Amino acid sequence: MTALPARYSQAPVRLLALEQGTFVARDDLLATEAPLTIRVTGSAQPIVTMRTPGHDLELAVGLLHGEGVIQGRGDVLAVDPLPERDDAIRVVLDPRARARAGRLQRALPASSACGVCGKTRIEPPASAELPPLPPGPEVDRDTLLPLPAVQRGAQRVFHRTGGLHAAALFDGAGELLALREDVGRHNALDKLVGWALLGDRLPLHGHLVLLSGRVSYELVQKCALAAVPIVCAVSAPSSLAVELARRFRITLVGFLRGERFNLYSEPGRIRGLVEAESARGTAAR
Amino acid sequence: MTALPARYSQAPVRLLALEQGTFVARDDLLATEAPLTIRVTGSAQPIVTMRTPGHDLELAVGLLHGEGVIQGRGDVLAVDPLPERDDAIRVVLDPRARARAGRLQRALPASSACGVCGKTRIEPPASAELPPLPPGPEVDRDTLLPLPAVQRGAQRVFHRTGGLHAAALFDGAGELLALREDVGRHNALDKLVGWALLGDRLPLHGHLVLLSGRVSYELVQKCALAAVPIVCAVSAPSSLAVELARRFRITLVGFLRGERFNLYSEPGRIRGLVEAESARGTAAR
Repeated sequence: MTALPARYSQAPVRLLALEQGTFVARDDLLATEAPLTIRVTGSAQPIVTMRTPGHDLELAVGLLHGEGVIQGRGDVLAVDPLPERDDAIRVVLDPRARARAGRLQRALPASSACGVCGKTRIEPPASAELPPLPPGPEVDRDTLLPLPAVQRGAQRVFHRTGGLHAAALFDGAGELLALREDVGRHNALDKLVGWALLGDRLPLHGHLVLLSGRVSYELVQKCALAAVPIVCAVSAPSSLAVELARRFRITLVGFLRGERFNLYSEPGRIRGLVEAESARGTAAR
Repeated sequence: MTALPARYSQAPVRLLALEQGTFVARDDLLATEAPLTIRVTGSAQPIVTMRTPGHDLELAVGLLHGEGVIQGRGDVLAVDPLPERDDAIRVVLDPRARARAGRLQRALPASSACGVCGKTRIEPPASAELPPLPPGPEVDRDTLLPLPAVQRGAQRVFHRTGGLHAAALFDGAGELLALREDVGRHNALDKLVGWALLGDRLPLHGHLVLLSGRVSYELVQKCALAAVPIVCAVSAPSSLAVELARRFRITLVGFLRGERFNLYSEPGRIRGLVEAESARGTAAR
């Protein structure tokens, strides 16, 4: 492992590859995993998260959005790297958001936790009072099918490590607007939401998000906070992910591969589907 | 989503599948994701983690082992479900381990965090002073190649949801000893280590662990705490995972697929490899 600065998203590695029965010494690239410190001014404790370097400002505000601390562009007065550090971000919030950050911090020892820190909060403060999404937009099923190939193509441009999760944002016509990557799937989505937030594109009504892996409840929750109406994934959702998608009236698409997908909730956003199903139901009677 | 008790690891779901151009209503199974509360007696705050129900006692003690709180079988005086609850575990620790749990809790607001709770601790208390692993065991490369197929076969027996990570323990001859699954990759490994801990099999010198996905620094760290000398994965490691593996002298194997794999650290544990490489180096001169 060389000592490349942490700002690089890939790190070179020397390895031995077993190929066709023989070990060969090879140089390869790994996805970088390194800590990022997020200091919210006015909060006593910094947030430290492991991430792949790159789009750190977006990650910082996206993470705070996913925690319900930042609720709109106006909550962010400033976000910038700490001087002479490539692993620390300073976020200056408006007073109301700062108060929410304070509550978050006080709540953490009582209710937080995960696989990393050994604890997990079940719901961020904002999600309990979050209203379900309004109806629409409607999209063609044929809009969804090519999305994974578009995402993989966009990933290939940037990375050759085979070790990065991706989250991509598409418009209702299936046009790729942004793609973010990270060793952590939550981080990839946080970066994407942070990009939208800093560009004042929230709420994401009318948009689709595609996730490269499996869908946990937490990913659905982050999408709900960003008001994403259609969430697609290449792999399986968990039971709680489907439950939350139904509660928030998000259209959840899983196993989006080749010419097929599964639809777990809110089929009304797939154009013509409900009518076709009703018609077939009548015909069968 | 039906309201099956949380103890079930799979939940039935009604979905619409797009197959060969037509939507078909189908019944399927999802991996369950549900909260588990872990109460360490003497600690004020419970730990709450999202997990797939099943092997919850193992998860509780394995998680505490990964945090450096439990360091051996003797630290666990009792571990049992809370009466009439299927989502809460009580762990009774011996006084020294209880003191470590107290320190962990006090440390959390300052240094903990992740994608879920918004924060992440970089190193659990125990890993800083953890010694590198001793040399050995030596295994044949042909012992490693079949492991993913064995793991997949064992998973097929239990699950059809396509949504579960797995961690499997093998002996030095490639014999499967235990397999644990979860929607969270960290949980699967915690359950496996918890199984070994409760069966008084720690440290895991002489054993191999196979992980179904990518390898983060944290998974390597959990293996180091359990003294697993050979860690294999079907996918890519992160930069920090390789760094930690080299520091703890763990043999890290990635992209273990079909007839090939990558070797990132400590090749001396692959029988005959170092000699063969030296011989070839000499021949090439």
